[in-house]
Amino acid sequence: MSSADASSSEPEPSPSWLPPRPPIVSGEDYIASLRGRGLRVFLLGERVAEPVDHPILRPSINAVARTYDLARERPELATAVVRETGQRVNRFLHVTESAADVVQQNKMQRRLGQLTGTCFQRCVGMDAINALYTTTWLIDQAHGTPYHGRLRAFVRAMQRQNLVVGGAMTDVKGDRGKAPHEQSDPDMFVRVVRREPGGVVIRGAKAHQTGCINSHWIVVMPTMRLGPRDRDHAIVCAVPVDHPGLTFVVGRQSCDTRALEGGAVDVGNARYGGQEALIILDDVFVPDELVFMDGEFEFAADLVERFTAYHRRSYVCKAGVGDVLIGAAALIADYNGVPQVSHVRDKLVEMAHLNETIYGAGIAASHESTATPAGNWQNDAMLANVCKHNVTRFPYELARLAQDLAGGLLATLPSEHDFADPEVGPLLKKYLRGRDGVSAEARARALRLIENMTMGRNAVGYLTESMHGAGSPQAQRIQIARQMQVEDKKALARALAGITDEVEGGA
Amino acid sequence: MSSADASSSEPEPSPSWLPPRPPIVSGEDYIASLRGRGLRVFLLGERVAEPVDHPILRPSINAVARTYDLARERPELATAVVRETGQRVNRFLHVTESAADVVQQNKMQRRLGQLTGTCFQRCVGMDAINALYTTTWLIDQAHGTPYHGRLRAFVRAMQRQNLVVGGAMTDVKGDRGKAPHEQSDPDMFVRVVRREPGGVVIRGAKAHQTGCINSHWIVVMPTMRLGPRDRDHAIVCAVPVDHPGLTFVVGRQSCDTRALEGGAVDVGNARYGGQEALIILDDVFVPDELVFMDGEFEFAADLVERFTAYHRRSYVCKAGVGDVLIGAAALIADYNGVPQVSHVRDKLVEMAHLNETIYGAGIAASHESTATPAGNWQNDAMLANVCKHNVTRFPYELARLAQDLAGGLLATLPSEHDFADPEVGPLLKKYLRGRDGVSAEARARALRLIENMTMGRNAVGYLTESMHGAGSPQAQRIQIARQMQVEDKKALARALAGITDEVEGGA
Amino acid sequence: MSSADASSSEPEPSPSWLPPRPPIVSGEDYIASLRGRGLRVFLLGERVAEPVDHPILRPSINAVARTYDLARERPELATAVVRETGQRVNRFLHVTESAADVVQQNKMQRRLGQLTGTCFQRCVGMDAINALYTTTWLIDQAHGTPYHGRLRAFVRAMQRQNLVVGGAMTDVKGDRGKAPHEQSDPDMFVRVVRREPGGVVIRGAKAHQTGCINSHWIVVMPTMRLGPRDRDHAIVCAVPVDHPGLTFVVGRQSCDTRALEGGAVDVGNARYGGQEALIILDDVFVPDELVFMDGEFEFAADLVERFTAYHRRSYVCKAGVGDVLIGAAALIADYNGVPQVSHVRDKLVEMAHLNETIYGAGIAASHESTATPAGNWQNDAMLANVCKHNVTRFPYELARLAQDLAGGLLATLPSEHDFADPEVGPLLKKYLRGRDGVSAEARARALRLIENMTMGRNAVGYLTESMHGAGSPQAQRIQIARQMQVEDKKALARALAGITDEVEGGA
Amino acid sequence: MSSADASSSEPEPSPSWLPPRPPIVSGEDYIASLRGRGLRVFLLGERVAEPVDHPILRPSINAVARTYDLARERPELATAVVRETGQRVNRFLHVTESAADVVQQNKMQRRLGQLTGTCFQRCVGMDAINALYTTTWLIDQAHGTPYHGRLRAFVRAMQRQNLVVGGAMTDVKGDRGKAPHEQSDPDMFVRVVRREPGGVVIRGAKAHQTGCINSHWIVVMPTMRLGPRDRDHAIVCAVPVDHPGLTFVVGRQSCDTRALEGGAVDVGNARYGGQEALIILDDVFVPDELVFMDGEFEFAADLVERFTAYHRRSYVCKAGVGDVLIGAAALIADYNGVPQVSHVRDKLVEMAHLNETIYGAGIAASHESTATPAGNWQNDAMLANVCKHNVTRFPYELARLAQDLAGGLLATLPSEHDFADPEVGPLLKKYLRGRDGVSAEARARALRLIENMTMGRNAVGYLTESMHGAGSPQAQRIQIARQMQVEDKKALARALAGITDEVEGGA
Repeated sequence: MSSADASSSEPEPSPSWLPPRPPIVSGEDYIASLRGRGLRVFLLGERVAEPVDHPILRPSINAVARTYDLARERPELATAVVRETGQRVNRFLHVTESAADVVQQNKMQRRLGQLTGTCFQRCVGMDAINALYTTTWLIDQAHGTPYHGRLRAFVRAMQRQNLVVGGAMTDVKGDRGKAPHEQSDPDMFVRVVRREPGGVVIRGAKAHQTGCINSHWIVVMPTMRLGPRDRDHAIVCAVPVDHPGLTFVVGRQSCDTRALEGGAVDVGNARYGGQEALIILDDVFVPDELVFMDGEFEFAADLVERFTAYHRRSYVCKAGVGDVLIGAAALIADYNGVPQVSHVRDKLVEMAHLNETIYGAGIAASHESTATPAGNWQNDAMLANVCKHNVTRFPYELARLAQDLAGGLLATLPSEHDFADPEVGPLLKKYLRGRDGVSAEARARALRLIENMTMGRNAVGYLTESMHGAGSPQAQRIQIARQMQVEDKKALARALAGITDEVEGGA
Repeated sequence: MSSADASSSEPEPSPSWLPPRPPIVSGEDYIASLRGRGLRVFLLGERVAEPVDHPILRPSINAVARTYDLARERPELATAVVRETGQRVNRFLHVTESAADVVQQNKMQRRLGQLTGTCFQRCVGMDAINALYTTTWLIDQAHGTPYHGRLRAFVRAMQRQNLVVGGAMTDVKGDRGKAPHEQSDPDMFVRVVRREPGGVVIRGAKAHQTGCINSHWIVVMPTMRLGPRDRDHAIVCAVPVDHPGLTFVVGRQSCDTRALEGGAVDVGNARYGGQEALIILDDVFVPDELVFMDGEFEFAADLVERFTAYHRRSYVCKAGVGDVLIGAAALIADYNGVPQVSHVRDKLVEMAHLNETIYGAGIAASHESTATPAGNWQNDAMLANVCKHNVTRFPYELARLAQDLAGGLLATLPSEHDFADPEVGPLLKKYLRGRDGVSAEARARALRLIENMTMGRNAVGYLTESMHGAGSPQAQRIQIARQMQVEDKKALARALAGITDEVEGGA
Repeated sequence: MSSADASSSEPEPSPSWLPPRPPIVSGEDYIASLRGRGLRVFLLGERVAEPVDHPILRPSINAVARTYDLARERPELATAVVRETGQRVNRFLHVTESAADVVQQNKMQRRLGQLTGTCFQRCVGMDAINALYTTTWLIDQAHGTPYHGRLRAFVRAMQRQNLVVGGAMTDVKGDRGKAPHEQSDPDMFVRVVRREPGGVVIRGAKAHQTGCINSHWIVVMPTMRLGPRDRDHAIVCAVPVDHPGLTFVVGRQSCDTRALEGGAVDVGNARYGGQEALIILDDVFVPDELVFMDGEFEFAADLVERFTAYHRRSYVCKAGVGDVLIGAAALIADYNGVPQVSHVRDKLVEMAHLNETIYGAGIAASHESTATPAGNWQNDAMLANVCKHNVTRFPYELARLAQDLAGGLLATLPSEHDFADPEVGPLLKKYLRGRDGVSAEARARALRLIENMTMGRNAVGYLTESMHGAGSPQAQRIQIARQMQVEDKKALARALAGITDEVEGGA
Repeated sequence: MSSADASSSEPEPSPSWLPPRPPIVSGEDYIASLRGRGLRVFLLGERVAEPVDHPILRPSINAVARTYDLARERPELATAVVRETGQRVNRFLHVTESAADVVQQNKMQRRLGQLTGTCFQRCVGMDAINALYTTTWLIDQAHGTPYHGRLRAFVRAMQRQNLVVGGAMTDVKGDRGKAPHEQSDPDMFVRVVRREPGGVVIRGAKAHQTGCINSHWIVVMPTMRLGPRDRDHAIVCAVPVDHPGLTFVVGRQSCDTRALEGGAVDVGNARYGGQEALIILDDVFVPDELVFMDGEFEFAADLVERFTAYHRRSYVCKAGVGDVLIGAAALIADYNGVPQVSHVRDKLVEMAHLNETIYGAGIAASHESTATPAGNWQNDAMLANVCKHNVTRFPYELARLAQDLAGGLLATLPSEHDFADPEVGPLLKKYLRGRDGVSAEARARALRLIENMTMGRNAVGYLTESMHGAGSPQAQRIQIARQMQVEDKKALARALAGITDEVEGGA
């Protein structure tokens, strides 16, 4: 970074593509910032008038809001100081400057998992910014392009207003056996459909985009390694979420409509939820200043690998969510009167062991970060893949153990409205108590939270997203295969086995 | 059985406690038989006017109805001939007369699991009748009581009208650390509150009762080993479901209200579902003819062990449900264009392997049946416990693998109403296709079925009920510990290790 | 079978190729029968003069001998009556005549596993005879060949003298990526090298042949599906073990030489062990009467599938071996003074659960046998593969749990000769005691048995042979894939998902 | 540390209890240093004249020697500079001064695992020194004792001569249900039997002591939490290995005597092996300068927890050993001609995934180190326990997968002496080749290495020691239970479930 930048005490002026506004400070500010954007959002077959007020979407907004409040409560955890400027920025918008920065992301992620019990949706942007920071630098080195400077300007602008940056990576893919240029419909992967003076026009759709409706900007990126004939698909750029060419179709989640029932118990986790939507980009113009790759197809794999290296260890958030599930299981065991029974204790220990195994590999990946040529820090890719791969397994086993500890009532508990019914409610309170002194309501709430996390709305985040987010299991296995240095390992074995000549008839 | 019975060609007259009616033959007859009973059913905070017409309850009724239709389609599978009378009866009402009969129950159960993809709710009665057949005989031998004859009359009456018999076993239990007589509220376990001329009056509540609202009669049984001070809890009897003293509170299931949305796709499995409810018995009078145990507390354990031995291998139904899930996973892999990819094939094989492992132990338990002193056949208890214990594990792994194969869209698929929307629907059909030639709707339906079975309504049956039905995992471990003949195994080890004298200072 | 045969009370005369001798009755007779055969056996770099007297080979002979003694002790278990002749024969030589016969094989196998703690080596012959019984019948039907009659004569002769029949199936294979006829050296698969009047001459080698040196005859069979260009490899025939053209090279086993040390403790299981050897066939002439397939390559797969279906459920023997290991683990827990500790009990239960899961699938495969067109009974192939596939996993977990329960002394226990040393022995007895009243020797013996089964000589049989015997894990997965009826399962899923038209643009 | 120390340029004089000698530099020096010590070592029932020359012991000595040579080859990895003195010392003797120091231990350990394929035996001393560094400081703070200074002097002396320090921790324990003072023989736990002027006399035995015969000094430590009545057992001190009061009895290892057979192939890993022995202390006098705890029973638990926290993450060495096993499995797959087969690749990936999961948790534990009040750095205890707990599971699964990939020949391969035999050798070379171009010997060596690591001599280290070293699995579960902060987790769950009042009848 230039010393001119560093010495500058003047606030950098807002770029042309970003209307000035005061920075967002609190969760409340953030929620206010989302109002009135006129987004084109579909949910359950209807256009949503105002996402902020929609009972199904609101919990996902609350989860993002929690990231702002944590930054105020624990700045050392959820903010960072940019060395160059001395500016304190939200950690989700920070370009890492040390291994410790990378590690601190993980600690923040675990804490937010603990506080929300769900996906708080802000990691994709953080990881995308950091991956692009290096890849744009590398492209510029190779091609003399101006991407790195544009990206830095974009990041600074986001930092100043403290905005939420989401990603848009996973193309809808069509036939998975075919490359982008081989698809019968080329729009199956987002692409540049035409070039105009001062910018490009893109079209396509991105699936499973976490928290996109709750973001201010999204960064469009290719989803996989591209070849020379996929050049038009090699596009990276930033798009404002309220661009009129965007349509968002919200994915259904298990039990999503419980949020419409007007209660507070059956939802399980009334305050927080996740969000994933399909983004359709219908001929969206992107000005040059916001384009960070355009046609340099040979860097698509570099970008994807850097991003997934970061993002796969970002899944330590699930260890935070796991903490909640362990707590809920411990709670229900307590309410049932059996917390000291040996098999109950042992199952809680097993849950903790698996949960910390996830955390261990993730934070190890971050600690083992090294400086990139661009100056930011990149985590260890092998350990990140290992972390994520365990995330595709262990939360399912934690869920199974939590269901074991919950008891059968998990699946047969009457509605909270039955508990409130004057006729049958008192009978339920009589018969569905646990040990003496514990209210049936407390027991019901603990069960509903476990249901929420193992079968309900947040099971989508805790289980299915754990499986497929940041790449499905097979994607990790492919990366592990690439990085496992099997030839080095064979050499170790040869040395100890005393194999000096493998060739038949050799010495 | 007496020869008088056997030679009788006269139809046995209906007993006083059972209004005469023609036997139920088809699923349609069965559904008709449920109408107009005036049951006191609560669901989602409301009294249900007519369960048959309730969109949430109806799929569970359809599942029971399927058992009648299967009996017509494949009588060798789903009916049996009573040797004594030559009468062909529904297999769910049959007292087993050979190991082959016990095995055939399993084959019928697997088939019904395949046909419904859910719990068809009729096994508890079958297993209860068979367990009681022996236990009542043993009690009569010990005490000169008339229970066995009463039970046989009850079974014959049920067979003649081809009724659905449900169970009512799992007490709500209160503090799990305390015996029935130690509870601060003795109603935590169903009990005789008073004796009247010609019968007894019982009170209490039974939780998680599968298909109870869809039954015609329920058999009340104690839930565990009882001691001399629990004598009033040692009550077994039959009660008609439309008895005015019964209240049913239906348990919520994940995604239950999707059935109220008016669609056919998002429900995943539109036709079939499970049902579990809390039954509250509010001072219900039971005439002597329908009492099969009253105070013989020392036989409670015998009954529970016989019942669980049958019922734990009845969980081979989950292998049938697993067949559906494997099929759905294969289907979505096909739609995605990757059915021949090696890791996809390998995951399907793993699913089949686990599924057949469940089936193997279950059917082995049935094949290894032996005749009881009462004349019916009882399956092997160790293998039954082993079967059920695998059921508490493997369906969760099958579900995990199915979610893996499904891809991320499982958790982010828009509502069927979005697909139908004139504005956004065409975009969804464009972008959410799989390989060429497969409609987005077919893909959506396959995904919704997997969602239904792994997170939605039937996940309750396929996962949580697999965990806790017929006893939670720890209950199986306790039985395995009892039956594992550890002293015999130690003797085998001693013989091979050459340990002839363990005593210090010995020879 | 012809009625003439059945009515014959005359003893069938011994065939020309089999010298007459009285039938073997006891284990002692059997051991005597092995002496003086002049076999060409190599072990540890030396030609073995008399296998019966070799300390390493003798335990494997004892294990086979145990099959004879069990037949005397429990004839209902280890012998069977041939319906046609009324003759009682050893079950290992019996052609099954009912599902019950197939089941009884499993019960005998489990019992022998319990009694020997190792591989008793006699199953291959039993399974080969039964597989060939059907395949030869089918070949004869297709080609008018005389194989079935020859085989029956061979079996009757073996039954009369009560001999041990081994198999010789697994070719050494060379490059596993190539078919027999593609190998650079065609001897990599056993083949007919020339035809002579009255017989054929074969050459090649069969690896891992269980108990071959302890057999009287071996049945040579192809190891896999063959094509038209592999015709010379399509050879099935019987060869006497003492044929001069055979060479046997005994495989090393872990800790094999402990048997040479002269002690009785460190060997772990002093009496019994397994045996696997390489058989080299150096231009062996086989008379026509002993040829059961010659060139009918298209039946090789049928034979292999029938044989592996039988043989993969024969691995229930490992449940018997597992019983010993569970017993040994329970014993050492007892000696350490911790048998009632909850985690110890729980691990024993887990061991029993896994062990019975193996047994369940195996015995289910046998119970589900059906009659073949040849008249014998063939077990269910899917369940057999499932059984064997669990055998490639669960014994390893049982071994791990046994090592857990054993404690660290398992790997650090001094030699029995140290215990016997006048100087250090008393100190060892002082310090290596467990709970009061248990001798250090008993503790040492229990530990050595666990070592034997998890790392030592019988680990070869309990673990590695469990992995690869009757086909490696991938072989089972291929069979499971073939038999899992994935299209039927997809149809089930389609029906429940309501997929009536998959085609894009369809109704 | 005093500034006097830091400024001192004079070499510290050797203490009275340590004869002066030049520092050990190379592996060769080290081996020379072990000669002629006259240790009282028993092995296989005989007194060993010179351990260095014993074929079974020598490989374990070579493994320790490798630590010296690595320090010369890669000083940044295997040495460290003491900040206070600027002296470069072997890392195994280094008191950590930063988290990076703790991490570097792990990297050295993994590398040595890779280089030796076994246990290199030097970690216990390293971890003991670091644990004692803090505990002695804490005791001194509480009691005004001089232990910390003594320990520092001891460590400096060890560093100057570059000696091997072993541990002596695990008491033989007798009846595991009883505390030390409750044992019928109090010697079951090492104890002070009397006090003399200038020192104490100790008696007892320590089991499973890794590399003790190969050490120069051992540090005696209590094995568990002690109570006030166990005061005499609360003894920590250093003892020279050649003290005449010590007797060592070497534990047998699987296949140990293959080292006596004179070959180089069947041993699997000819150069390296592990060592564990029983140490009997027969009234050994220890001078006060070498006593680091004497009676402060309340600090026993602190010491044990600090030591196990270090030592449980030291098991990342097994990831290095795992690298060798993965390499060997890849090698044999290559030799068999199937390296690209999908299930083979997938199993190698699974092995790598599990192996790196071990490493991830271990190195995370080290990275998360914090400074102790004494000034050295202590790693995270939860992650260390999690690391070790995975070590009790994953190497067994790696071993299982390696055996799968090895094929059946692993268990049936003839002896190397058969290969060398002029008669049968050529036949073996013909028939036991793999793919074209690979010698049978190379294949045999790869198989023998896998046998060595999964069933043979180094299976003791890779499996059984992985299970029990640094505490058996249950010990980790107890620590995880203590550290899992279950009350905090319950609070998280309560917050999200909205449970504000658990009390029945509460608001």
